[in-house]
Amino acid sequence: MNQHLKRLHDLDGECRLLAHTADILNWDQETYMPEKAVEERSEQLALLQGLLHDRQTSAEIGDLLSALGSTQGTPAGDPGLPPVERDFLRALWRDYSKNTKLPRDLVTEFARETVVSQSVWQEARKRSDFALFKPHLARIVELSRQVGAAYGFADRPYDGLLDDYEPGNGQEKLDAVFGALRTDLVVLLGKISSRPRVRDDFLSRPFPIAGQDAFARRVAADIGYDFGRGRLDLTAHPFTTTLGSDDVRITTRYDERAMAGGLFSVIHEAGHGLYEQGFDPEIRGSLLADGTSMGIHESQSRFWENVIGRSLPFWSHYFPILKDAFPSQLADVGLEEFYRAINAVTPSLIRTESDEVTYGLHIILRYRLEKELIGGTLSVEDAPAAWNAAMRELLGVEVPDDASGILQDVHWAGGLFGYFPSYALGNLYGAQFYATMRRDLPALDSDVASGRFSPSLGWLRDRIHRFGRRCEPGEICERVTGGPLEARFFVDYLNAKYRDIYGF
Amino acid sequence: MNQHLKRLHDLDGECRLLAHTADILNWDQETYMPEKAVEERSEQLALLQGLLHDRQTSAEIGDLLSALGSTQGTPAGDPGLPPVERDFLRALWRDYSKNTKLPRDLVTEFARETVVSQSVWQEARKRSDFALFKPHLARIVELSRQVGAAYGFADRPYDGLLDDYEPGNGQEKLDAVFGALRTDLVVLLGKISSRPRVRDDFLSRPFPIAGQDAFARRVAADIGYDFGRGRLDLTAHPFTTTLGSDDVRITTRYDERAMAGGLFSVIHEAGHGLYEQGFDPEIRGSLLADGTSMGIHESQSRFWENVIGRSLPFWSHYFPILKDAFPSQLADVGLEEFYRAINAVTPSLIRTESDEVTYGLHIILRYRLEKELIGGTLSVEDAPAAWNAAMRELLGVEVPDDASGILQDVHWAGGLFGYFPSYALGNLYGAQFYATMRRDLPALDSDVASGRFSPSLGWLRDRIHRFGRRCEPGEICERVTGGPLEARFFVDYLNAKYRDIYGF
Repeated sequence: MNQHLKRLHDLDGECRLLAHTADILNWDQETYMPEKAVEERSEQLALLQGLLHDRQTSAEIGDLLSALGSTQGTPAGDPGLPPVERDFLRALWRDYSKNTKLPRDLVTEFARETVVSQSVWQEARKRSDFALFKPHLARIVELSRQVGAAYGFADRPYDGLLDDYEPGNGQEKLDAVFGALRTDLVVLLGKISSRPRVRDDFLSRPFPIAGQDAFARRVAADIGYDFGRGRLDLTAHPFTTTLGSDDVRITTRYDERAMAGGLFSVIHEAGHGLYEQGFDPEIRGSLLADGTSMGIHESQSRFWENVIGRSLPFWSHYFPILKDAFPSQLADVGLEEFYRAINAVTPSLIRTESDEVTYGLHIILRYRLEKELIGGTLSVEDAPAAWNAAMRELLGVEVPDDASGILQDVHWAGGLFGYFPSYALGNLYGAQFYATMRRDLPALDSDVASGRFSPSLGWLRDRIHRFGRRCEPGEICERVTGGPLEARFFVDYLNAKYRDIYGF
Repeated sequence: MNQHLKRLHDLDGECRLLAHTADILNWDQETYMPEKAVEERSEQLALLQGLLHDRQTSAEIGDLLSALGSTQGTPAGDPGLPPVERDFLRALWRDYSKNTKLPRDLVTEFARETVVSQSVWQEARKRSDFALFKPHLARIVELSRQVGAAYGFADRPYDGLLDDYEPGNGQEKLDAVFGALRTDLVVLLGKISSRPRVRDDFLSRPFPIAGQDAFARRVAADIGYDFGRGRLDLTAHPFTTTLGSDDVRITTRYDERAMAGGLFSVIHEAGHGLYEQGFDPEIRGSLLADGTSMGIHESQSRFWENVIGRSLPFWSHYFPILKDAFPSQLADVGLEEFYRAINAVTPSLIRTESDEVTYGLHIILRYRLEKELIGGTLSVEDAPAAWNAAMRELLGVEVPDDASGILQDVHWAGGLFGYFPSYALGNLYGAQFYATMRRDLPALDSDVASGRFSPSLGWLRDRIHRFGRRCEPGEICERVTGGPLEARFFVDYLNAKYRDIYGF
């Protein structure tokens, strides 16, 4: 390998190590850190993010990229290089050009503030006290606006934030996609609402947490999540984080009276974990060993959680096992009844516990509020009322308190403005991938019904996971499905599934 | 504050943050890290230790120290500075002059190797397979020798290592102290051996681990360990680590059939934790907020574990509580009988489970082997045989396998050559402090017997903890006890205690 390229790989490798180190500190904060340690933790993370920023924006990287022919306009470097190296240079150029636009002070201040914010958010959610969280949210909105503007989107800073999660994705495109999606979802919801409710009372019977945990771990391992290169812990909000090439951790939360919530969170996070554990060894330790976008990432988690995890074949395998684990709770419940219960459509308060139909409306709500908060047309002061009004308008639900309203998600406290749309895009990507997968794997349903997940995982590994950031999201979609992202696959999938369940 | 001093505090503060970050990675490795993640973890730690070394040895620190009048020969800076600042400069000068002697590559290689080594040691201990650990031990001996030599002790590199744990302490002094101590211990052991054995069979009855854990946590909290600024986890080898000013964590291991081992480990580590949680706010976040030596640190842990934790007043308070928690296991056991059992003197294989009399002999064994390994008169190849021969000679015990022999302790795998003597010094310091404490606190026994630990903790806080590194160990000893360290306090303490128990 030429010396310039080797040096760039070394520099990038050190950045990965530092980034993973910061992620370890974040993971520890969410899982095991003593409460009072938050102040110093915020300083530790600010220091690390500052050091990382210095390295990611060093003049040496810029010079080496130029020397290798990777600059504005020709981001992929010398055509004579091996394809993986051209992909490396393209991704490095993208990161370098974005990172150099951010002032160092903004990076460290952002890191410091989000640590404190997340800690305050936990307390505020517990006490349902928005006033406690408000000054922190205001600060993060302000810092996020600065980030978006620094990226070169001074007029529409939210576009700058969106670009971090789904490259090339802006408000104009999302307005169109979400506008159409909303119409389709509302039509479907109307059909469902006209039918009798499905029975799901047994899901809120007490399921002891130890049993829930054992079952969830079994499912995660069965679908292919490698506990030898990961682990599962408990946090206020479930997440997946990569702390090293062989260290991809997931988290969940359990509630004795809501067994579905904990289980589907584990499957969701394991879906993220499968992506992160599935990169080619060839890109190990480099910036290419990462999800290509959060939309594609969420396509993996939502695929395993819903398309597979809430399917009838899946439960024809697992329901007898679940019934063995919880014989008294499920004594009077049959497979079909259970399947309908975990797919019951009911407009409700909490996004992570919502069904596949109303889920998109939760995202559209958040998207609207984010756009307005960052755009400056909604004040933090007015945000809870705006949330509650949007819940009424989109879902017909009254929000009783901020804990089950604007305080329910950790994302804003963590500085993740621009992330929420990824969930909805993930649903769309996932359904589109699934349509192709069904054609490629005619035995898919019977495999799943026998607890064989390696064909579907192998299909995803081969077409999506192993590339990491080597392919852009649009490119992945074209290569895997033969066309660009379209909402109709998701809408068709939902209509077919719920027509069966609700019989309209 | 003058600008030079302020800048030094900022630089030092960043070093503390980086050092704590590295400690978080180490803690995670020992507690929760997936096994396969060890390779990247070693790279993360090597990078962090390299960054820390760069900062600790920067020319700027040297220049600022000189400008402030803190150089070789005048380490305490301008006499016009406030005392705490002079202490800061003295300690910083000491660290700077030591760190600048170490080549960067040696620092990073040491960090990388010890991560891998500790992981291999765990496996080797589990399988009792010294051959697996041997190449790593050889490498660490070699690297430690280089460290000792780099510190300027090329002729006797072990002296250089000892100086890290107990400033100014070398082989000459330890040979004398340990020589005399050995004689006294052997005499005492002879007297004890001539008496009937005390009954302690009930300690190996099954004590469910959940109950052990609850009891141990209660005791740790009672003596003053603040769980709001710390936590207790399980590891292969118990330890205490400070991850932030408000984040001092302890670990233990439990064995259903050895309830004393888990409990006294918790009290021991909580003793370390009390020291680390007790520094003055004035020195928060600076290098002064650290134990002044490992000997003083071990004086705190061994004091709580043994002097308090294995005393009759302590158990006159706790035995009824323990009996409530384990009624069937302790049905036929009385307080005095329990007290004698947890103080039973029996030459045995495992240091951490040994009694107060034979403990010192375990240390003398390790001291002898370390001296020879680093000095080059004992090869790693021959070390297990030398261990076993020394066990026979010093304790009259046959070692059945390396897991209960040379592989029992994590220290060498962690690169801590020179640490073991601290335990014995800790016993000596602890007994000497205790002699003064008894004079100062006439109600000590009745306080302990009522579960009131704040007088003794307050006494330690006031005289030892709060100063951190502001006082050198010798200075602490003089100020607290009115004289230099002497072994006779410990020997007197042991003789009095065991005369009572064994009736000689």
